[in-house]
Amino acid sequence: MNTVELIERKRDGGTLDTEEIDWLIGSYTSGAVTDYQMAAMAMAVYLRGLNPVELSAWTSAMLHSGDILDFSDIAAPKVDKHSTGGVGDKVSIPLVPMVASCGLAVPMISGRGLGHTGGTLDKLESIPGFRTELTPVEFQNVLQRCGLVMAGQSETLVPADRKLYALRDATGTVPSVPLIASSIMSKKLAEGLDALVLDVKVGLGAFMQDLDHARTLAETIVGIGTDHDVPTVAVLTSMDAPLGHEVGNASEIRESLAVLRGDGPDDLVEVTMALGVEMLVATGVEADRENAATRLRATISDGTALETFARVIEAQGGDPRVVEDDSILDSADRTHVIEAPFTGTITRCHARKIGIAAMRLGAGRERSEDTIDPGVGITVHAKPGQHVAVGDPLATLRYRHPARLAEALASLERAWRVGDAEPDAGRVIERIT
Amino acid sequence: MNTVELIERKRDGGTLDTEEIDWLIGSYTSGAVTDYQMAAMAMAVYLRGLNPVELSAWTSAMLHSGDILDFSDIAAPKVDKHSTGGVGDKVSIPLVPMVASCGLAVPMISGRGLGHTGGTLDKLESIPGFRTELTPVEFQNVLQRCGLVMAGQSETLVPADRKLYALRDATGTVPSVPLIASSIMSKKLAEGLDALVLDVKVGLGAFMQDLDHARTLAETIVGIGTDHDVPTVAVLTSMDAPLGHEVGNASEIRESLAVLRGDGPDDLVEVTMALGVEMLVATGVEADRENAATRLRATISDGTALETFARVIEAQGGDPRVVEDDSILDSADRTHVIEAPFTGTITRCHARKIGIAAMRLGAGRERSEDTIDPGVGITVHAKPGQHVAVGDPLATLRYRHPARLAEALASLERAWRVGDAEPDAGRVIERIT
Repeated sequence: MNTVELIERKRDGGTLDTEEIDWLIGSYTSGAVTDYQMAAMAMAVYLRGLNPVELSAWTSAMLHSGDILDFSDIAAPKVDKHSTGGVGDKVSIPLVPMVASCGLAVPMISGRGLGHTGGTLDKLESIPGFRTELTPVEFQNVLQRCGLVMAGQSETLVPADRKLYALRDATGTVPSVPLIASSIMSKKLAEGLDALVLDVKVGLGAFMQDLDHARTLAETIVGIGTDHDVPTVAVLTSMDAPLGHEVGNASEIRESLAVLRGDGPDDLVEVTMALGVEMLVATGVEADRENAATRLRATISDGTALETFARVIEAQGGDPRVVEDDSILDSADRTHVIEAPFTGTITRCHARKIGIAAMRLGAGRERSEDTIDPGVGITVHAKPGQHVAVGDPLATLRYRHPARLAEALASLERAWRVGDAEPDAGRVIERIT
Repeated sequence: MNTVELIERKRDGGTLDTEEIDWLIGSYTSGAVTDYQMAAMAMAVYLRGLNPVELSAWTSAMLHSGDILDFSDIAAPKVDKHSTGGVGDKVSIPLVPMVASCGLAVPMISGRGLGHTGGTLDKLESIPGFRTELTPVEFQNVLQRCGLVMAGQSETLVPADRKLYALRDATGTVPSVPLIASSIMSKKLAEGLDALVLDVKVGLGAFMQDLDHARTLAETIVGIGTDHDVPTVAVLTSMDAPLGHEVGNASEIRESLAVLRGDGPDDLVEVTMALGVEMLVATGVEADRENAATRLRATISDGTALETFARVIEAQGGDPRVVEDDSILDSADRTHVIEAPFTGTITRCHARKIGIAAMRLGAGRERSEDTIDPGVGITVHAKPGQHVAVGDPLATLRYRHPARLAEALASLERAWRVGDAEPDAGRVIERIT
């Protein structure tokens, strides 16, 4: 095969066959196709797209570029959830212990934060001692003992995606539906799942800012899952405003623990429950959605979800006392309160601006090599639908360095708007199966 | 500046300002912008284009990425000619001595062959001893002594183009009008010229296969020249069939010498004369085109062009006896004649197929690291408009290895067609100023 010919064909709007895609992805993984050739191909795919047959082949080729996990010795149905990323999106942290407490096995492979979005691994690592880099044997053992495991992608799992994702990040080829969908699905299908639930975020703080694009991504992902015989459900949820009140790392663990204790913020609980119901129904553990919801709520009221979380924290080297005493989590000493310069009802609380502000405080990464400060972050007091008067707090910023505070404040300009109150329509927009 | 932001803007069809383009090209030359980022940008430019302001800025930025030659101490008007590349296109070799004999200075920087097209440097190097890698001082000295010099691009001249051209070749981003035009013009403008003449090839053996694209390229190039205050004329010439009869390296020197002795093939002489007239008129050495043609013909009839060629050959280390005795040029011993399987008038003699066949014999390069065999090649006997009978020779292939002959023959399938005779319309299609 000739790499340049394949690039030229895609450049000109043609299609690649399955054998060609297998060869391309395999050769890129081995290094025979160079980064600069793949960058040109990624831009051509960005601008020309992949048809459903190409996309399925592309995903399969990525999936088979490394190891595929085998949990066939675990009797429980295996399920995972993936979010396309947002601000304050800590849903996985309470959700996974809840569904594991219902008898599902969740081998969750998560990512790190980049840009305005946080990452589940970074948040978990704010728990003292918690390790997210597990060997394959450790991963398997934690899953078997606890019914859940939350770790990073190993070097041998979907190496093609590891390389391609870093390349896309540096070459302006990230927000492409086929490239996003194949990246997500190649990793998730490598987990050997019985079902998969996707949280596709849409809005100011999401990669997809309009509903049509988000719906296309959701349908594309569900199509790939179906092609690979893994029942897949996508839930579109709103990401105009941060989810919950906390944007940071240690602070998002605190808010996740609040959900597990039954006193989480409404929007965060709503999304967590919606995804949990899908996970129980998609695996066939519950046929009825209302029963599924009842069962999930019971894991909170009877304390089993919190216990499950403590168990997995301990299994992964973390200090399980955190579930009783979250003061062991880091918190930056200095605080700055932003006060409302107006009176009225909040109509916008700009998730992306708040995410960037949190990143500038040190809670996120501008570049993938940046380090995270677990104790800094933003508590959002005023969210859409809330009434505020002049001088009421809109947000509290926890920071270490005044220079970083100044940068964060610059990003927060016009992050809040007031106007005629619109009723909060809830976060869940629609489900796609 | 942020590389990814610039890529994203071009990807989305936006424009880059002059400062951004300067920064991009400068950073790519220094290595701060990586090959893979530039590959993504090149594909975005390929698919989104550059507007005239961007293109002029892109060319200037490339031009200023390295040294700019200064021949202000040479009184004669400096002029050069560039061809977009074809099969059997040895025009520069007789042309440059002819125009230098008319009092112009020609600091010609040429390239090497790649794919189905040959390169002037490769052809010149088939003259025993001829050196095309000259130091800047040697380049200047030869030009001063002989009124012409024909050499390769030094490391310090337009390094941005050197890098970008190699990258485009490997990433399917070669045939883009703005990228071709800026590549050509950045190199030519770095020669410090008073005028420039372009031979834009169009047809089966050219990069541009249809007239509209070729015209767009020609207009684009002329526009860049005008923007940089260098009078530039483009001549569109047909490249459906090879130019002249010889396709190879030593054999093309032979045919070039025939032109300088006054017995070159009609089509080759036609294109050589047309470009020579443009060079004399564009520099103001002759105001009248007919006078220019007369003067050029005189350089052949009085032998000065041949003498000038002998002088530059000697100055560049070559054996000047070649102008009297071309038997000192290499020639492969083995020959194979392709005979006409039909009787009729030739309507097509496919330049690209013949170019690829010559490349397979060893006269060209499939990859830039391949070496050239000067003695192999193809002599085309039957060209469009000629009548042939069954058994008449269509072409003679000179080869070294039977395996390579077989590959060459495979490429020549259906290279010739017969049909109703169309009168040969000549090679020069139109001129664009």
